Formats: sequence, C-alpha cells, structure tokens
Amino acid sequence: MHVMIDLCVVPIGVGVSVSKYIAECQRIIERAELAFQLHPYGTVIEGEWDDVMAAVKLCHEKVHEMGAPRISTSMKIGTRTDREQHMQEKIDSVVEKLRR
Amino acid sequence: MHVMIDLCVVPIGVGVSVSKYIAECQRIIERAELAFQLHPYGTVIEGEWDDVMAAVKLCHEKVHEMGAPRISTSMKIGTRTDREQHMQEKIDSVVEKLRR
Amino acid sequence: MHVMIDLCVVPIGVGVSVSKYIAECQRIIERAELAFQLHPYGTVIEGEWDDVMAAVKLCHEKVHEMGAPRISTSMKIGTRTDREQHMQEKIDSVVEKLRR
Amino acid sequence: MHVMIDLCVVPIGVGVSVSKYIAECQRIIERAELAFQLHPYGTVIEGEWDDVMAAVKLCHEKVHEMGAPRISTSMKIGTRTDREQHMQEKIDSVVEKLRR
Repeated sequence: MHVMIDLCVVPIGVGVSVSKYIAECQRIIERAELAFQLHPYGTVIEGEWDDVMAAVKLCHEKVHEMGAPRISTSMKIGTRTDREQHMQEKIDSVVEKLRR
Repeated sequence: MHVMIDLCVVPIGVGVSVSKYIAECQRIIERAELAFQLHPYGTVIEGEWDDVMAAVKLCHEKVHEMGAPRISTSMKIGTRTDREQHMQEKIDSVVEKLRR
Repeated sequence: MHVMIDLCVVPIGVGVSVSKYIAECQRIIERAELAFQLHPYGTVIEGEWDDVMAAVKLCHEKVHEMGAPRISTSMKIGTRTDREQHMQEKIDSVVEKLRR
Repeated sequence: MHVMIDLCVVPIGVGVSVSKYIAECQRIIERAELAFQLHPYGTVIEGEWDDVMAAVKLCHEKVHEMGAPRISTSMKIGTRTDREQHMQEKIDSVVEKLRR
C-alpha cells in the first residue's frame, strides 16, 4: 500500500527552538530513500506504508534520544486505490485548475 | 515505546455518511485489544507503538476493502520518556487543575 | 454556519507539563458557553463558527499571556450543510452500527 | 497576533477528485493577499490571525456553495511571541542545520 503523509514532529520540553530536531528527522527520511518535500509546517513523505511508518518511528526514537522527554506529532495519512498519485501531481492538479 | 494516538479516518468518495467505516475501524481496535476511547471527532488509542500502528494500517486496508477509493486520515501521535501517562490520567490532570 | 472542531493546543518552551495551560483553555470554552467534550488528546467543541473561532483565539492569547512563547495547535474543523449533527449523535451513529 | 497555519480542506460527498475545490480555496487565499505556500498535502498561510481565519471561513463557505455537503479540514496553527518567524525562515533554519 502506497501512502503519502504530512509529518510535523513537535518536541516538548526542550525550549522554543526545535529546528535541530527537525533536521535530524530530515536525515532519517533521506537515509530511508523516501521521496519527500520539506515545507514550512512539516514534511510530506511518500512511499510504501511500512517504510514510511518505520521512518516516523525512527524520528520519535531519535528525538527522544536527543533529549526531548515528550513529543506530540501531527500527521495526515493519504492512501488511494483508484490510481497512483505522487506529490508533484497533487500540486499540478490544483495549479492546472487555477490556470483555467 | 508506548504511544497514545488520536485517530480520525476520513473515507473519501463514498458519500456523506461514513459511520459504518468508522464502526469497522472500532472493531479492528477492539480486536487488537488496545485501550481506546471513542470521542465525537476520532478515537484515542494507546499501546505499544507497533501494535497501535498495525491497527491503523488495518483500518486503512479495511476501509479500502469496503469500497472507499481514497482515505485521508488525521492523526496525532504522543510519546514521552519522562513517565508513563495513560488516557484517563491526562483528563484527570486537567480536571484537577480546573477544580483549584 | 455551525461547526464542530477538535482542538489540541500544545504550548512549547514551558517544559513537559502542559495541563495548567489546557485547564485555562477549558475555562475559556466554558465561559463562552459552547458545547464541548474533553478527551485524552484534545477537546471537541461545537457552536457557531465565529463563536468557536473566537474561543480558539482567546486560548492562544491566554496561553501566551501565561508565559508560553510558542504554541502549535492541531485542529480538525467539521462543517456540513446536509443536516445538523451534534457531538453525541456522531458517537451514537458509530455505536449503533457496532451493535448490529 | 501573527499566525502561520497549515490548511488541508477535505470535501466529503463529492467523489474522489477534490482539486477543483482546493483551487477555489487557493483563489480565496490569493485574493486575501496573504503569504502562502502550496504543498502536496495542504497550504501553509501566514498573516494576521483575523485575516487568516476569515480566509479559512470563506474556504468552507465556498466549498459548500460549490456543492460539497460536508467538509473535514485539518489545520495546524502556530503562534509565537518570542520573535517573528516567516515561512522561508522556518525552512532555512532546518536546511542550515542539515548543512553542518
């Protein structure tokens, strides 16, 4: 099952600046060789369900290991069986309608 | 790693009434013997990370199997290493402060 | 426009224990005389759009005022024009299907 | 109060293809002259709280007007009082840490 997620990991209890934790999550996603796109409020990731969810788990483990005692992640999970649709196609589909 | 999630599965392309899909997800969570609490905009579930995520995957598979061509799930994921905290304790902690 | 939201306010930069902030948000929702239901990972609130969103804004203002320099809230927003549906009805609709 | 939101509007009961509804929401955001960035699973928008939330309300009204009987939106809401931080800065902050 192919999946597209929008992942936003929020470390709690380590102060206001959280970008170093997010950078480590980026590294995990890159190492997993998943397609992704970083945006200002999260990262969109796509791939096989098990691979993507394994990366999410690694992110939680890593952020705790770095010292965050608590994490609250927000995630959207999209799957579809009617057809495959990749990240850029979702954007193209909206942009094309805007041009009409 | 213990986890508490707030799960809201939204089937797309099967009309406006989605409660029969949600009921099947409830059955999956009950069969998995996970602690859960149904609320008006989702279900809070807790347990071991792998068990909880396996149930979420089963929900997506089941809802597609029932005929939904597309699903967009919203999920919050909470983990903490400082201490264990179960569902009722989170509510009690707020209610206790309200009483002061 | 009637709306049902699921609100989860996460104060960042004030340590691991956030229940006193959540309790203040509860007070705001109660004072606004909105229907609500506290659950282990947020609060479901319903009412007129403007009233509900005004309460969300007050929550952010209050939590900042209490000392949180940063907040990341997760919110689901449900509206429908086909019929009115209140919090308990959403739960009843799922539970009724579970009984069959 | 400045706010950054991540908005994902999901029309329910209008079939599987929802990009025309999302395109209309884009038009509303552009007309409101808010800074925004479309990504594959939503749109990040920033501006003054009231202006941003007014645009979200217009999106719900428009999508219902276009025929969707039900909408379930996912939204993250970020505010901070310690400093101003715009969309590109959040990305730059992560990318800079990745380069180290």
